[in-house]
Amino acid sequence: MIHRLLPGFYFHTYGPNAPVLSIRSGDTVVATTVDAGGFDEKGVLISSDMRQSSPDTVYSSSNPLTGPVYVEGAEPGDTLSIEVLGIRLNRDSAWSRVASNFGGLTEEAPGRRLLYNEAIPVKRYEWSLDLEEMTGSVQLSDSGRFPLIPLHPFIGSIGVAPRFGRVEMSLTPGEYGGNMDCSDVCEGAVLQLPVSVRGGLLVFGDVHAAQGDGELCGVALETSAELTLKIDVLKKSIEWPRIISDDWIMVAGSSRPLMEAYKIAHVEIVRWLVDEYGFDKWDALQLLSQVGRVRVANTVDPNYTVVAKFPCRYL
Amino acid sequence: MIHRLLPGFYFHTYGPNAPVLSIRSGDTVVATTVDAGGFDEKGVLISSDMRQSSPDTVYSSSNPLTGPVYVEGAEPGDTLSIEVLGIRLNRDSAWSRVASNFGGLTEEAPGRRLLYNEAIPVKRYEWSLDLEEMTGSVQLSDSGRFPLIPLHPFIGSIGVAPRFGRVEMSLTPGEYGGNMDCSDVCEGAVLQLPVSVRGGLLVFGDVHAAQGDGELCGVALETSAELTLKIDVLKKSIEWPRIISDDWIMVAGSSRPLMEAYKIAHVEIVRWLVDEYGFDKWDALQLLSQVGRVRVANTVDPNYTVVAKFPCRYL
Amino acid sequence: MIHRLLPGFYFHTYGPNAPVLSIRSGDTVVATTVDAGGFDEKGVLISSDMRQSSPDTVYSSSNPLTGPVYVEGAEPGDTLSIEVLGIRLNRDSAWSRVASNFGGLTEEAPGRRLLYNEAIPVKRYEWSLDLEEMTGSVQLSDSGRFPLIPLHPFIGSIGVAPRFGRVEMSLTPGEYGGNMDCSDVCEGAVLQLPVSVRGGLLVFGDVHAAQGDGELCGVALETSAELTLKIDVLKKSIEWPRIISDDWIMVAGSSRPLMEAYKIAHVEIVRWLVDEYGFDKWDALQLLSQVGRVRVANTVDPNYTVVAKFPCRYL
Amino acid sequence: MIHRLLPGFYFHTYGPNAPVLSIRSGDTVVATTVDAGGFDEKGVLISSDMRQSSPDTVYSSSNPLTGPVYVEGAEPGDTLSIEVLGIRLNRDSAWSRVASNFGGLTEEAPGRRLLYNEAIPVKRYEWSLDLEEMTGSVQLSDSGRFPLIPLHPFIGSIGVAPRFGRVEMSLTPGEYGGNMDCSDVCEGAVLQLPVSVRGGLLVFGDVHAAQGDGELCGVALETSAELTLKIDVLKKSIEWPRIISDDWIMVAGSSRPLMEAYKIAHVEIVRWLVDEYGFDKWDALQLLSQVGRVRVANTVDPNYTVVAKFPCRYL
Repeated sequence: MIHRLLPGFYFHTYGPNAPVLSIRSGDTVVATTVDAGGFDEKGVLISSDMRQSSPDTVYSSSNPLTGPVYVEGAEPGDTLSIEVLGIRLNRDSAWSRVASNFGGLTEEAPGRRLLYNEAIPVKRYEWSLDLEEMTGSVQLSDSGRFPLIPLHPFIGSIGVAPRFGRVEMSLTPGEYGGNMDCSDVCEGAVLQLPVSVRGGLLVFGDVHAAQGDGELCGVALETSAELTLKIDVLKKSIEWPRIISDDWIMVAGSSRPLMEAYKIAHVEIVRWLVDEYGFDKWDALQLLSQVGRVRVANTVDPNYTVVAKFPCRYL
Repeated sequence: MIHRLLPGFYFHTYGPNAPVLSIRSGDTVVATTVDAGGFDEKGVLISSDMRQSSPDTVYSSSNPLTGPVYVEGAEPGDTLSIEVLGIRLNRDSAWSRVASNFGGLTEEAPGRRLLYNEAIPVKRYEWSLDLEEMTGSVQLSDSGRFPLIPLHPFIGSIGVAPRFGRVEMSLTPGEYGGNMDCSDVCEGAVLQLPVSVRGGLLVFGDVHAAQGDGELCGVALETSAELTLKIDVLKKSIEWPRIISDDWIMVAGSSRPLMEAYKIAHVEIVRWLVDEYGFDKWDALQLLSQVGRVRVANTVDPNYTVVAKFPCRYL
Repeated sequence: MIHRLLPGFYFHTYGPNAPVLSIRSGDTVVATTVDAGGFDEKGVLISSDMRQSSPDTVYSSSNPLTGPVYVEGAEPGDTLSIEVLGIRLNRDSAWSRVASNFGGLTEEAPGRRLLYNEAIPVKRYEWSLDLEEMTGSVQLSDSGRFPLIPLHPFIGSIGVAPRFGRVEMSLTPGEYGGNMDCSDVCEGAVLQLPVSVRGGLLVFGDVHAAQGDGELCGVALETSAELTLKIDVLKKSIEWPRIISDDWIMVAGSSRPLMEAYKIAHVEIVRWLVDEYGFDKWDALQLLSQVGRVRVANTVDPNYTVVAKFPCRYL
Repeated sequence: MIHRLLPGFYFHTYGPNAPVLSIRSGDTVVATTVDAGGFDEKGVLISSDMRQSSPDTVYSSSNPLTGPVYVEGAEPGDTLSIEVLGIRLNRDSAWSRVASNFGGLTEEAPGRRLLYNEAIPVKRYEWSLDLEEMTGSVQLSDSGRFPLIPLHPFIGSIGVAPRFGRVEMSLTPGEYGGNMDCSDVCEGAVLQLPVSVRGGLLVFGDVHAAQGDGELCGVALETSAELTLKIDVLKKSIEWPRIISDDWIMVAGSSRPLMEAYKIAHVEIVRWLVDEYGFDKWDALQLLSQVGRVRVANTVDPNYTVVAKFPCRYL
């Protein structure tokens, strides 16, 4: 069954918020998302009364999320499988920015203003999107450069209600998914998330038209989109988000420091190889060491995200 | 001019060791290397008197290095350009290993035995190399698996004498290059290294037949090879190793913690875009953030190595 | 005015939970706390229906908190001042523990079970407290040792509702205070916390009878107590918890990695010296560098806590 | 036997440099040191030809070191015990500095100039020392402040030749000791260092008249001194520097990130408690967790130094 969801409001947290839609395992959801700043497909900022906060909670205005979607039969300990059938960009523009105190070249603390880190100015970039050619371009200030880059849309923020209640900033990734800013969550991929509360309570938003590894300056090509997601409940348990493409199985670990996210992803992918594919643990470690790839997905959010990748051909 | 170098001995340090060959800028060197354990193209371990230590120095036996090559005209502040014309594997086997206290899943301290990190056993893997098909294979202990992986040979360790004298373990990467374990230093690539002492004093070794990102378990497919390197002196100054391929310009940053290596690489590639390609600094940061890629090269050496990559098409 | 608070239930989060007591600025609260495991002054475990979770929230059972106390007139942007008039231990025993996957000698990730970190066994220690002599003692398993140590009771967890809604584990310290495990929050000290929601919503618990720096193994001498706290609203803004004793002004920074907590504390104490005491910023940095002291308060919680200390005599 | 050593030149490395004095175990050395900038007891800069570099090595000019002292009978695997009988400051002034790109508030990379870290100006401070009263004072630029602080002289840099040859910057601490900047290496203390080469080859310098924990801005009260050191060879093996005072046994761990130095120190002090004092390992961890203290010694050098401290009264 296909459900169409036109959000009337948006949450800014991952957590036990009241669902706006209830579906069955196997159903498909078609839903729109606004960009990380709250601009919709017409480039109009959503009104402040469309922003839902948690009870008694002040929200951070970044990354408004569509949902939650309640999935019948999803119980704590299960896994939610989200197949990304479509990401249709629905606007011919995206914005980006460089700014001090944000991004991978600042200090490791999230969101603080520091004595020693005031050098990067705020500068906004308006990217034009050609949705036919799937390219983006922007006028740079220097020497008339006008780069044209290929678009590769993906879902920046997608997550379920977390284990301990509520994560109060939709900017934060974790074991529940969230703002992983991982370009592997694109059309054709299957994302698996660990269910912690009944119904899972899936939310999503923050589509990026394109982004480099690490989301270095902290802001990608931020835009709105319509997503088509097929959602299934799997009766198995996982600990961290898993992503499956035609070529790779992947685990997204999110933590600080960066090395910890790297370790989480690799420990979990070794466990996956052992539990589901019958590898000996140390053989899995050896083979992964020779054929694995690593994506640094973000170095800007309150937790950094690293993706460990193992080629499907050796499964 | 082409120089053939058959090493009679090997150093285990980056530093001001006595050169074994003097060449001119523009010359080419064809030289053999032994593997990280000291095994040559016949699989024979080099004798202990072929291992050169620095004056009064105890060597660590890992990563014996061919060289140094003295390049006439290379002065401190210059850059050495090394074009990798060929990496010819000259043995049909490689070894690898998993081990406790080594690799990216251990504690962050290099080479220490800890209370709390004794779980990974030592297990050796003998990989067979098919040099016609350029594939490697190994018998895994579990369920009869026999994976066949594509080879992509590269130079694990290549560096010049560093700024402050000598780095006493050839396992260590840094601003002088060294054991970066970066698979981008492959046939066709050009590596640029900052010259700190007259002649540069280039050494190299530790060829890997294949390796995953991060060299997770600490050991790749270790083998011997014959290298063909064209070496030029460039009258410009750089701060960290740069790599140029047909598709990418890259900077390899090496430090701990991992995030610091990430920052070094990105700060230096922004500088490169500004200094040599005329970008505005913040435009460079913005564009790099959207189209850059990141390779985690190693998470095992005394310094970790991260490679920032920018596509040549936007230069 | 003095308010007596005998809690009928306990929260396990810092956040906008319903207050159990409303007071005016200048009032004093006398209240009991249970230990980190939920044992009261009789050594009896609180019943599960005394544990309040947030709406729709699964709680983590550690560190039950007394409160919240609503302070009239405390507005977001204000500061709550808590003078610790008394910490009366009310039980002659405390428990502690060593355990794998917990404490400063494990991996940096909070609460995860890893491949490589299974060496520390679970071992419980029952400490006897002599409340006359203010000493603690425990039978060690080796060679008949029976150490007698001085007690120095302090409040392990004390915090207000945080900026972005709710922190779902009372184990976590942050800019709102929380589980700082800082032995400077002892009798005679004044703690200042930044108010983020109306009323402040102060909670506290997890009294430690004694603890070493860093709370190395993750568990101190956990016991119950009766606290006497005088609470005032200050019409000034601070960013991180400040502590004032007769001899020191202090700032507690909480983050990961450890170095980040160190930096937070020192940046904030420099700001304090500049804003309230009229120091030139760089003079403050210089003098702090020569006379400052540092306490590593905890290396076990989801954020580590470091305290920067500046002697009052130079103010 | 007492040896007087008036250095004619200074090394800037820890390593196998030619000894200037040979002594027997049990002998005492009285020797002068110059300050970290190379200024002697008259405030005169040592001449450049008094600065000894290693063979073929460019030196970094910081922290000129007196020595090496060769200790007869000290073999690799032994321990050198250095009892600090006296630290006599021999100059009535000390200098300090704040500077960008140096100190605990800068980025974690040693000695690099960064995009984002240009805020701290260079500002020199001339401290006056009253050697009768053992106080220091300096004119601050703000509001006529003239703080008077107690002096507590200690040896900033003291080390032996390291395991793998040579450490090329005397600024670097490690398992060989070196520039630990640890105020516990003061008069009355005994420092133990692991011997890696025959004779030990002890060097020392960089006396600080006073310093706060962490050496936050990177520079203490830098001055010259005359040291009196009683040196013994112990036939036991240690892994990291140990310090013994009347009240504490201590281990100094040096590494990056900061948490790693913390772990090194604590793992080694647990080992010490087990090996020399007969504690059960987990009992040692438990008791250390309750009564231990931690000093952050430096957060500025290429490796940070953390000191774990255990009270002698419980041995």
